[in-house]
Amino acid sequence: MSTMVALRKSQAGPGAELQQIPIPLPGPHDILIRVKAAAICGSDRQVYAWRPSVAQLGLKFPFTMGHEFAGVVEAKGEHVSHIQVGDHVAGETHVPCGHCYQCNTGNAHVCEKMGIVGRSVNGCFAEYVLLPEQSVWKLPGNLPFEQGALLEPLGVGVHSLEVADVSGKIVVLMGVGAIGLLTLQAAKALGALEAIAIGRTPEKLELARSFGADLVINAREENVTERVRQYTMGHMADVVIEFTGDPVAFGQSLEILRIGGRLVAVGNADAPIPVDVLKHVIHREITITGIHGRRMYGTWINAQNLVRTGRINLKEMIAGSFELKDYEKAFALAGKEARKVILLP
Amino acid sequence: MSTMVALRKSQAGPGAELQQIPIPLPGPHDILIRVKAAAICGSDRQVYAWRPSVAQLGLKFPFTMGHEFAGVVEAKGEHVSHIQVGDHVAGETHVPCGHCYQCNTGNAHVCEKMGIVGRSVNGCFAEYVLLPEQSVWKLPGNLPFEQGALLEPLGVGVHSLEVADVSGKIVVLMGVGAIGLLTLQAAKALGALEAIAIGRTPEKLELARSFGADLVINAREENVTERVRQYTMGHMADVVIEFTGDPVAFGQSLEILRIGGRLVAVGNADAPIPVDVLKHVIHREITITGIHGRRMYGTWINAQNLVRTGRINLKEMIAGSFELKDYEKAFALAGKEARKVILLP
Amino acid sequence: MSTMVALRKSQAGPGAELQQIPIPLPGPHDILIRVKAAAICGSDRQVYAWRPSVAQLGLKFPFTMGHEFAGVVEAKGEHVSHIQVGDHVAGETHVPCGHCYQCNTGNAHVCEKMGIVGRSVNGCFAEYVLLPEQSVWKLPGNLPFEQGALLEPLGVGVHSLEVADVSGKIVVLMGVGAIGLLTLQAAKALGALEAIAIGRTPEKLELARSFGADLVINAREENVTERVRQYTMGHMADVVIEFTGDPVAFGQSLEILRIGGRLVAVGNADAPIPVDVLKHVIHREITITGIHGRRMYGTWINAQNLVRTGRINLKEMIAGSFELKDYEKAFALAGKEARKVILLP
Amino acid sequence: MSTMVALRKSQAGPGAELQQIPIPLPGPHDILIRVKAAAICGSDRQVYAWRPSVAQLGLKFPFTMGHEFAGVVEAKGEHVSHIQVGDHVAGETHVPCGHCYQCNTGNAHVCEKMGIVGRSVNGCFAEYVLLPEQSVWKLPGNLPFEQGALLEPLGVGVHSLEVADVSGKIVVLMGVGAIGLLTLQAAKALGALEAIAIGRTPEKLELARSFGADLVINAREENVTERVRQYTMGHMADVVIEFTGDPVAFGQSLEILRIGGRLVAVGNADAPIPVDVLKHVIHREITITGIHGRRMYGTWINAQNLVRTGRINLKEMIAGSFELKDYEKAFALAGKEARKVILLP
Repeated sequence: MSTMVALRKSQAGPGAELQQIPIPLPGPHDILIRVKAAAICGSDRQVYAWRPSVAQLGLKFPFTMGHEFAGVVEAKGEHVSHIQVGDHVAGETHVPCGHCYQCNTGNAHVCEKMGIVGRSVNGCFAEYVLLPEQSVWKLPGNLPFEQGALLEPLGVGVHSLEVADVSGKIVVLMGVGAIGLLTLQAAKALGALEAIAIGRTPEKLELARSFGADLVINAREENVTERVRQYTMGHMADVVIEFTGDPVAFGQSLEILRIGGRLVAVGNADAPIPVDVLKHVIHREITITGIHGRRMYGTWINAQNLVRTGRINLKEMIAGSFELKDYEKAFALAGKEARKVILLP
Repeated sequence: MSTMVALRKSQAGPGAELQQIPIPLPGPHDILIRVKAAAICGSDRQVYAWRPSVAQLGLKFPFTMGHEFAGVVEAKGEHVSHIQVGDHVAGETHVPCGHCYQCNTGNAHVCEKMGIVGRSVNGCFAEYVLLPEQSVWKLPGNLPFEQGALLEPLGVGVHSLEVADVSGKIVVLMGVGAIGLLTLQAAKALGALEAIAIGRTPEKLELARSFGADLVINAREENVTERVRQYTMGHMADVVIEFTGDPVAFGQSLEILRIGGRLVAVGNADAPIPVDVLKHVIHREITITGIHGRRMYGTWINAQNLVRTGRINLKEMIAGSFELKDYEKAFALAGKEARKVILLP
Repeated sequence: MSTMVALRKSQAGPGAELQQIPIPLPGPHDILIRVKAAAICGSDRQVYAWRPSVAQLGLKFPFTMGHEFAGVVEAKGEHVSHIQVGDHVAGETHVPCGHCYQCNTGNAHVCEKMGIVGRSVNGCFAEYVLLPEQSVWKLPGNLPFEQGALLEPLGVGVHSLEVADVSGKIVVLMGVGAIGLLTLQAAKALGALEAIAIGRTPEKLELARSFGADLVINAREENVTERVRQYTMGHMADVVIEFTGDPVAFGQSLEILRIGGRLVAVGNADAPIPVDVLKHVIHREITITGIHGRRMYGTWINAQNLVRTGRINLKEMIAGSFELKDYEKAFALAGKEARKVILLP
Repeated sequence: MSTMVALRKSQAGPGAELQQIPIPLPGPHDILIRVKAAAICGSDRQVYAWRPSVAQLGLKFPFTMGHEFAGVVEAKGEHVSHIQVGDHVAGETHVPCGHCYQCNTGNAHVCEKMGIVGRSVNGCFAEYVLLPEQSVWKLPGNLPFEQGALLEPLGVGVHSLEVADVSGKIVVLMGVGAIGLLTLQAAKALGALEAIAIGRTPEKLELARSFGADLVINAREENVTERVRQYTMGHMADVVIEFTGDPVAFGQSLEILRIGGRLVAVGNADAPIPVDVLKHVIHREITITGIHGRRMYGTWINAQNLVRTGRINLKEMIAGSFELKDYEKAFALAGKEARKVILLP
């Protein structure tokens, strides 16, 4: 039996380790993919560091980390019909059951019995990854693998915008990490009237400006609420998309929304967040909603359309690439960078 | 100058007092209404008791309490054209400015510069109340005044249902006070598949059953989440409408929602409520939204349609009527009763 | 090889004939169902009569007619996992490809490459019918087969109401055939404020009244527009659901809508219909939309919920049952009856 | 009594004439505006030519033509509070009653008893125009009057896009007159993925390209359906906005829509248009909807935001300006030009 190298989590606590494990064999509906590029997600760093947001999930060990990738189909089960060996593909992180209420109503991305690649399903920080056909998405042949690996996180941003409905609106991106920057680009492409990026690191805010932010606010140095009020001439934000999961930023997100505005929560929080329901949700009729992943596959189509028409610059979103064996360096860089760090297994 | 009796709040702290004050004179766009029946709202009890949810609002003294009423037009300003002296009318609690962003986009009920009757605008626990024309709603001539006074709180419930979209859905009413019971009736009328009422008082739950609840749950005695799971065969609630403002009930509301469900917040909370954003809002894509008042005047039309076609039993919603001078007895009863208590000024 | 009896269409033109044909064998994803009850749809009568609405479709001969049925699973392919031999099931008329834009965005019921049971896919007026797993829906075990066969047409009505959004609204059912009567019941259950049924046959209108119509109008005898105006006190209809496909009825449907109202087209028209776009669609901002089939499977779930909770009376919707060999009598009765005629193959 | 010059329509039939008429006096809620620039609308040309689309409306003579303008407030009634003498303003063409169902539900722009400026209400092709306060919109002080006069037609386009929801979608502009070109610019600004302009005149199509069309199609020379199919790689259009009112173009609009697509009708048709309801509306679940005017005042705010942020180039949309006495030359140019022709009364 052939083996491969994989970056695995074997126990609770910080860190991960490279192990030699068997290359999995595809069942009748499965696809085996040779991983050509994988990206490190903020949630991978939470798994790596074993943050409370992850520790509370009750994951079972061991498992292979990683869920953002692109690769080439190496083998497939006998009943896979729409994907061929040799196809370039990306993987959907959500593995739906196909038969629950959510799956039956077009919401497979929040399936009731969902597997999560890189957590409950072995992930892509490995030479090969095995996925069921319904979680594999065919890529255009001319998209570089490193960029193909970014369609999944871009999809998170695009899904947040599908929910937020930003066309013609003043949109705040609260947080300027990788998904924030991808969402910023997508928000501008999807017709946001003005996009305001809020962060705490000058370098990341500078990146936000280069990706099209109409205003950047350094939350360490400026009064966020007053700066938004001034810039919007008192209108405040129509939409805030929250990427930090931080209670202070979450509270600011509510403060800077106009009456009737909408907060879309994306960033994983380590603990419950106090919400002034009376002041914001009731008196100001604000809506708080969240997104998890991407619609399967409406969001992928929308995201790919933005890339195909040149609206999203994926190339400039890459901070660096590392061989899998240098994963520690890669994670170190990912901890500092807003842009994406790539692993090449 | 003529005077009238009014129940007024003259300072921070519990209680209120009857005072003799001048009958106001209508300006060119104003309508003076002889109050025939006024109802005590849960928020009036919060004002009366000076709860934290009210104390934090910075209200100015003195003011006349009360905002739910029906009466007869006594006089009107010269530029009032669509209301006549002698008309039976009810009053909208929200007094919009008419020119802000919300007013300009069909959301006058959450006007940016809104006056609130019974708080920043003198209210209806008095012989007369004065309102600008845009906050006066003409009633059908055959509707008893005591029932006309209940259209405003019924409107709160109907507006929560406009936002919740309950047709064909499993709906939970979290809290069985007056608005909860009115909303329950309206939810059934508007096509809820099943309506579940949750409370803590057997008498109020019995009322809920009599008004059409398919299931009632006593939160003191039963495990709310498990009871909902069992009754819905694992589906859980599509919608929860939260009337209590209580943090425990709010948390239960999130627990009993299905993935992708919606919580509509109506009940005033005294303090911020901790929300597990990661578990509920993100991983389960739940939407939390709130309502304040009623759409002006779509909700009034919808509420009145339900009354006209016999879908809502307002008569059985009245616990008792008191002369204004007996307001202390009235408030005492209102503190115990789910049904409405009426003042007759 | 075993054979079975099937009612087939072998050429263009009126009529159909019973033939002895092989019982099909399930492929790996297929399910073979013993048909226990099948219902005659208005569109089956159009196929039988070879109406222009059908003749224009370019169907290929021969094919087995029929698409509304319930039965028992007789055999299944090796990769069918969620349906078992012996399960009671109904069939979805739309056989989607699973991979086009519509299938990828939650709209498989209007798949770009869709097969239609009883037209391009052999139908259920036969002892057995073969369907791919994704077009088979498991029924509750206690639902009589004759009623199970009515879930598909009930689904047409429920889907029209999902699109129409009738909660709290004045709804007109234009046409009182079987789907009109099923939709009427569903509209009342889903919270229509008032349901008005319009037809041309007193017996059918009487049925509409018995199924809950608040008003019935005989279009042969009354001025439809004026009767609606009078009954609604000038408001007119919020929604019209059009089941006839008749140009005159379609025009009346537009006339009786209020400004901003919505027409949902369901009934198959034999020819293009003239629409006064300027008067109705532009000056009155009316929306015309149509539905084809049912959402897979949100509509099935919604329809089944209405049946389970006793909102829809399927039993009274059955006019009579016939053995398959008596299909001519069955079609003759179906031509006169608003209720459904059942074939028992 | 002072008089002014006005371009008036005194009888059915082609043409119009300059007349000296009294300057109107403002009632208590009215505003008298000195017209500084007025634009000729396609519908003004229909009034001028007395096309069937206008002749059928039963207008009463005489009336002053024109409805697109900007000017300066000259005088106002005593109860006008939010507009001051000297303010720069534009006028809303729709004069709502303020008290019907539409006005009460946030849809005053399609009021049941609406006056139309330049038809049933005297218009702006005159030195002065008189409007009630609720139909006057304050302009930013720095917007040139000629451009201020274009906010109303821009609003038509923006309202069509509010209904169409073009963000991320392939949008076809069917017709490249002035509103088509304004809508094209707005569609791009509001996030259309790709905008395709279809027309019959090379010069107008060239303009469309200069205003941002990703593809232009000359319907005289190309097979519209096949060209759209090819360009969109078989996807077809998500949305078509129809500006011509022409039956052939309307039919093409339906042909080029994808399943589930949306047609927004804007262009006035002279006669009913045959619609293949079965093929397009039912089998393909296409939605046909129309717009009349602009939301009051959400659309004005949205349109003004696009101008303020430089998304819409109004200056390049002006073909030429004429004194009112040269109205014949102005109408002659307007008949040839896609861009707007301005009258300076």
